[in-house]
Amino acid sequence: MRLSRYFLPVLKETPSEAQIVSHRYMLRAGMIKQASAGIYSWLPLGYKVLRNIERIVHEEQVRAGHIPMLMPTLQSADLWRESGRYDDYGEEMLRISDRHGRDMLYGPTNEELITDIFRSHVSSYRDLPLTLYHIQWKFRDEIRPRFGVMRGREFLMKDGYNFDLTKEDALHAYNRHLVSYLRSYERMGLQAIPMRADGGPIGGDYTHEFLVLAETGESEVFYDSEITDLKFGDREIDYDDVAQCQAVLEEFTSRYARTDETHDAALFDKVPEARRRSARGIEVGQIFYFGTKYSEAMGANVQGPDGKSVPVHMGSHGIGVSRLLGAIIEASHDEKGIIWPEGVTPFHVGIVNLKTGDAEADAACESLYKSFTALGLEPLYDDTNERAGGKFATMDLIGLPWRITVGPRGLKNGVVELTSRRTGESEELPPEQAVARITAIYGLASA
Amino acid sequence: MRLSRYFLPVLKETPSEAQIVSHRYMLRAGMIKQASAGIYSWLPLGYKVLRNIERIVHEEQVRAGHIPMLMPTLQSADLWRESGRYDDYGEEMLRISDRHGRDMLYGPTNEELITDIFRSHVSSYRDLPLTLYHIQWKFRDEIRPRFGVMRGREFLMKDGYNFDLTKEDALHAYNRHLVSYLRSYERMGLQAIPMRADGGPIGGDYTHEFLVLAETGESEVFYDSEITDLKFGDREIDYDDVAQCQAVLEEFTSRYARTDETHDAALFDKVPEARRRSARGIEVGQIFYFGTKYSEAMGANVQGPDGKSVPVHMGSHGIGVSRLLGAIIEASHDEKGIIWPEGVTPFHVGIVNLKTGDAEADAACESLYKSFTALGLEPLYDDTNERAGGKFATMDLIGLPWRITVGPRGLKNGVVELTSRRTGESEELPPEQAVARITAIYGLASA
Repeated sequence: MRLSRYFLPVLKETPSEAQIVSHRYMLRAGMIKQASAGIYSWLPLGYKVLRNIERIVHEEQVRAGHIPMLMPTLQSADLWRESGRYDDYGEEMLRISDRHGRDMLYGPTNEELITDIFRSHVSSYRDLPLTLYHIQWKFRDEIRPRFGVMRGREFLMKDGYNFDLTKEDALHAYNRHLVSYLRSYERMGLQAIPMRADGGPIGGDYTHEFLVLAETGESEVFYDSEITDLKFGDREIDYDDVAQCQAVLEEFTSRYARTDETHDAALFDKVPEARRRSARGIEVGQIFYFGTKYSEAMGANVQGPDGKSVPVHMGSHGIGVSRLLGAIIEASHDEKGIIWPEGVTPFHVGIVNLKTGDAEADAACESLYKSFTALGLEPLYDDTNERAGGKFATMDLIGLPWRITVGPRGLKNGVVELTSRRTGESEELPPEQAVARITAIYGLASA
Repeated sequence: MRLSRYFLPVLKETPSEAQIVSHRYMLRAGMIKQASAGIYSWLPLGYKVLRNIERIVHEEQVRAGHIPMLMPTLQSADLWRESGRYDDYGEEMLRISDRHGRDMLYGPTNEELITDIFRSHVSSYRDLPLTLYHIQWKFRDEIRPRFGVMRGREFLMKDGYNFDLTKEDALHAYNRHLVSYLRSYERMGLQAIPMRADGGPIGGDYTHEFLVLAETGESEVFYDSEITDLKFGDREIDYDDVAQCQAVLEEFTSRYARTDETHDAALFDKVPEARRRSARGIEVGQIFYFGTKYSEAMGANVQGPDGKSVPVHMGSHGIGVSRLLGAIIEASHDEKGIIWPEGVTPFHVGIVNLKTGDAEADAACESLYKSFTALGLEPLYDDTNERAGGKFATMDLIGLPWRITVGPRGLKNGVVELTSRRTGESEELPPEQAVARITAIYGLASA
């Protein structure tokens, strides 16, 4: 993309309403604009990151054998009356009346709707196991929305639901989700720690929240420092292998890690003192096994191998897709702006032309632009007439992990400058070597 | 995808509520399930087609130089009061009150919101031309929703908005949209004819609707039969070339083609009688140039080259993404089921194992499955124990354009059977030749 043709409305001033760094930088980098309280438009740059996160979530869910679909945003109140949650859910549920006066609501979650789909179409254990998921906008009418997309009212969430014949099978589905979530967050450049959590309004005895450590997190967390040394890494996983998935769960959840809601001071004291940590964390996902709570209330039964009809065992599993943008920025920024991990960056590399209009500089930039595009990478090329300082400030603010600076002086020596946003380190090298370096970083073979 | 692990709840009976063929087949093929009146869940098969259509729309909009972003589903009533449409819009607008009693609405379209974004960030002609678009769920509280996704209440639409300094520039944007729409529909296997239309509540003198001819269409249309011979085809287009885009507009709109709303019997009579046609059509898109209607009402001005502040010229341009599934099926089906065009098919090819459990048949199917997957194609492999007749009926119903049938008898002769869903013609050939044929059809080089 050429910046002269893009819509990137960066702001010089820090907007006064933004209390935390991710909200400030998302506004300043022209990623979002508030449409009304807690509701945002995703401007082009923000939309690109949102789509990247969504893509990673899709890829990892499909890899785990889960099936994508899509449920609508508006739901009938009737299903929620069946489960008993229509009255239980407080004012955070946005209740709507249509032109015929029918009670509807903007879904805050989808246990009822998916259970209805299941019971309409599945009646035999032979169709199990089954895990369906979708990525859809939800609404939660927060009394005081704040922190930008971190605590918005309209938010994008991935929610998945497993249906299994037995508790044992359902716990394997739980483990599959844990593994797929670990992979997803790592691909986004995040360390998200599974912590023992509280069931809340969804219910459930088995539940873990995934928390990203950050000073601005809304939860206080307590953990054994050994946990931050764990990496999922490149390991191959067979999602059908019960023992393998169980082993990952044990590896990542056997050490003490809890939020204030489930914190147990006596247990925590058994962690060696040097490894005891308390910090703040941002919740970016949660997994639940809740057994037959919804299937019993809504009559979602299957016939087992013995011919008897039994309610299915279920769980639900969520990732806060839009909130993740905020979490990533909280975890990865400096005083100049955002620092995107390579996995989610809106553009793979920035190209700064120090002297737009200079024939050689323009030609060198065009050539880099075409090389990257041909390799399937997306560069953002600042071809504007802005002065160099302004161009650097914008690139630093929007946080592309790599920048190539092109100017007449370097070109005389046959070199351009490659700069890492994270370390700030620069290196001079011939343009084709810069292309090779960038393509290697993104795991592509150079041309 | 292996059918034994998929969620494809096909129905044997024709659902009584479905009045038109696309609705019937979408229900029977397990593509959608009604959640409440005019609101659907997209089951896995339907969701795949929806995503394919969405992808084509995105690719063609980006090719035309238009910039993707995303606006929220819920909007504040205030902006609609500024434009004057809050009171004008009738009961089809779903009005919502949040917990603080603030007036909101589920957006049926986005002229107000995009104009607000524009006026907040753009103040100079130097930032023009600019076209922003998004693909987002909309709501229209139809009094009597019907015809499945063709006339639903919650529907997915692409809507794009151009901002230009002059009427001339805005008409070029209009033409760019016309060209990109022609390309998009053709890639979906559809012929959509641009017809002179009526401005309706959006307003505007220049507007064309795109109609797909189908017996079940809601509009009566009148056209010169020469128009159905026009094809956009493979031609290269430079979207910055004003004359080239204008020429396409003239080519595709110079012949008589109107809906009943704008039909002019006297003009129509000038078409040679042998070429006069009346038929029914399904609207799948509409483009508008409406000048300064919203920019004046909402103060969206820019400073021109002469330093004077002027309201921008705008247009809006929509494609009915979810409705297109219905339109494609109405235009492409037979008595056995759907016939997907290659451009949007949920799976590229079906593999039917005539004797699941037979070692050779299983191995041949697995080998085909792996070959296609390695080539980046998605097969649907019916590995279930259903009898052959049932497997064929399902494949015909869900409409994959190509099927490979594998059985012990053919394998003894070293062949499988390749069948075209459209023509019903079958051919026996060695498995590797079947793979080569399919990959060639989808424009890929075989391994």
